[in-house]
Amino acid sequence: MGACPHAWQQHHLHHRGRMWAASPAFRRQLFLLRSLAPTCADGGRASSSSLRPHLMYAAAGPVYEADAEAVVRRITPPLDRARHKGQAGKIAIIGGCREYTGAPYFAAISALRVGADLSHVFCTKDAATVIKSYSPELIVHPILEESYSVRDDERESVSSSILAEVIKWMERFDCIVDCVGNIMRHARQANIPTVVDGDGLFLITNNIGLVEDNSLAILTPNVYEYKRLVQKVLNCEVNEENASEQLTALCQKIGGVTIMRKGKADLISDGKKVTQVSTFGSPRRCGGQGDILSGSVAVFSSWARHFLLSNEQPKETSVNPMVLGCIAGSLLLRKAAALAFEKNKRSTVTTDIIEFLGQSLEDICPAGR
Amino acid sequence: MGACPHAWQQHHLHHRGRMWAASPAFRRQLFLLRSLAPTCADGGRASSSSLRPHLMYAAAGPVYEADAEAVVRRITPPLDRARHKGQAGKIAIIGGCREYTGAPYFAAISALRVGADLSHVFCTKDAATVIKSYSPELIVHPILEESYSVRDDERESVSSSILAEVIKWMERFDCIVDCVGNIMRHARQANIPTVVDGDGLFLITNNIGLVEDNSLAILTPNVYEYKRLVQKVLNCEVNEENASEQLTALCQKIGGVTIMRKGKADLISDGKKVTQVSTFGSPRRCGGQGDILSGSVAVFSSWARHFLLSNEQPKETSVNPMVLGCIAGSLLLRKAAALAFEKNKRSTVTTDIIEFLGQSLEDICPAGR
Repeated sequence: MGACPHAWQQHHLHHRGRMWAASPAFRRQLFLLRSLAPTCADGGRASSSSLRPHLMYAAAGPVYEADAEAVVRRITPPLDRARHKGQAGKIAIIGGCREYTGAPYFAAISALRVGADLSHVFCTKDAATVIKSYSPELIVHPILEESYSVRDDERESVSSSILAEVIKWMERFDCIVDCVGNIMRHARQANIPTVVDGDGLFLITNNIGLVEDNSLAILTPNVYEYKRLVQKVLNCEVNEENASEQLTALCQKIGGVTIMRKGKADLISDGKKVTQVSTFGSPRRCGGQGDILSGSVAVFSSWARHFLLSNEQPKETSVNPMVLGCIAGSLLLRKAAALAFEKNKRSTVTTDIIEFLGQSLEDICPAGR
Repeated sequence: MGACPHAWQQHHLHHRGRMWAASPAFRRQLFLLRSLAPTCADGGRASSSSLRPHLMYAAAGPVYEADAEAVVRRITPPLDRARHKGQAGKIAIIGGCREYTGAPYFAAISALRVGADLSHVFCTKDAATVIKSYSPELIVHPILEESYSVRDDERESVSSSILAEVIKWMERFDCIVDCVGNIMRHARQANIPTVVDGDGLFLITNNIGLVEDNSLAILTPNVYEYKRLVQKVLNCEVNEENASEQLTALCQKIGGVTIMRKGKADLISDGKKVTQVSTFGSPRRCGGQGDILSGSVAVFSSWARHFLLSNEQPKETSVNPMVLGCIAGSLLLRKAAALAFEKNKRSTVTTDIIEFLGQSLEDICPAGR
């Protein structure tokens, strides 16, 4: 299923150092850095521009298969009895229209199944009733309604100024780009990781400024969306021979963003080295898997960012949490898809895959650890 | 998931003494009183004002862990083939709005899963279709509809004057508080236990008079809602060192009500002693668990009230059924959450917990006893 127009995710997590400040944290992180050294040794935190010369060199390097399981184990927060609702994450999906109601639902429910505490969907009035009916777990906001209010204990999760912008955006089609721009600028100022997927990528493609130099932005293009991006940004065709160099160049040209090129192997880059996840998933290509991925990446990238923020590390060894989030999300989807296919074979649909997200995560990093 | 604005529950049970007047009833009750002596020895029936001096002294006492399993076993009505529909309880959930349809659904379906016979939801027209779609078990009233009628065999469950007030309340946003006030006054006159949760607590916080001296009212604030209550009513901040004294003082200041402060351990007080339930549930903090709790507490508090009313007891040893209801609801949610987590781990959502309410209750007090 294609994502609905401007489908993208934002995810916010309370910063509570002690959540991850447990004693083994530093050892865990060293392990993490080792497992990611090839990708991130040159420091994911420095601005891409300052690193470009170095990166151009690095970009010529080989593609490393990420130690994805290690990444998932390191960034997934231990379950803590003292936590209260929201501290494992609150996600907001902006998207959902008359034609597409499945995409935002898949992304939102996947976020919950991966472990986020709350999942909001902001969509059109038409889409809202349908998306709500898919599951009582989601908080669905028909943002074209005027009488709107977020409860205090959730206000933090989605700022009212984002809402104001979203409302403007939905109301006047001719100002979509401006408003998405405002929303993304706000998300960035608020340090909220943003995943842009589906037709949101179409907007980005025609307005690169919207994500330029936003190190918290992740683009997750499929083969078609990637083709458009390459043509628009690099003025050339996709070149499979130099796939990793081209992906690196694309990230650098846009500046700062992380791109996960979805395919048989997911290629992930933030303009430095290129990492891939090629664990076999499922031969089924049912629509909607990309939506599970964007929802999962939103949660994992936020967890990764939080993990790194709460475990001080020397700049030169810093890693890019957005890259970690992509690696973790990619692996989890592939494992869940494999389990779902094993059970449902040709009849596997996206919902079957979502049912296995929990077991897949448990297999990789048991909740009881 | 957060409760929707003004989400609150009312529960009414037919008073049929013989339901609990079976021979072992008195022995059961003595056991109950023993198990609750620390909490209730000073008599839950007397008006809080007359007892304040004594209570201030009692409030300095320690917090006792409730013998929650004994409470559940005592107050849960034995299944009786002679009973007819409704005698195990009819619950009405007032709530459900554009954004929040999950909260009232979770509360209503939980009430049925705990053992109530009928569960009604009164909500906006927008929310009604969605809530109906979640489950055919619920009777959902879109109260903005004019052509409204309650079926005869259910007319008793919700008086038409409540409906009139609810309709007024929904029709004119600027009179919400007045109407909620009318509804609560009516519930009180009709001796209907009332659980106030979610944003219903927000109204209460700003209009304490709505529950003042209502010994059948239960407030179930989470960490945010409790903070607001303490600030508004006691004009100070939450003090963890003297948590039980502060909770007791809060109950006394409001007068008569029972408050369950939800947290790692649920603290329960009616202004006399403080009881807690700290049985470990689940480390997952998915939204919606509070809604299961309010639905369960509504059923248990009514059962407890009925159990006590139908087993005459000396005044000086009387216990507060609202406190018993909170204890029972808290334990049941925690047991169900633990079972759901055992099965679903990080991927546990509220729906998974509801699926285990039945087994949890059966584990504590088998239907066959």
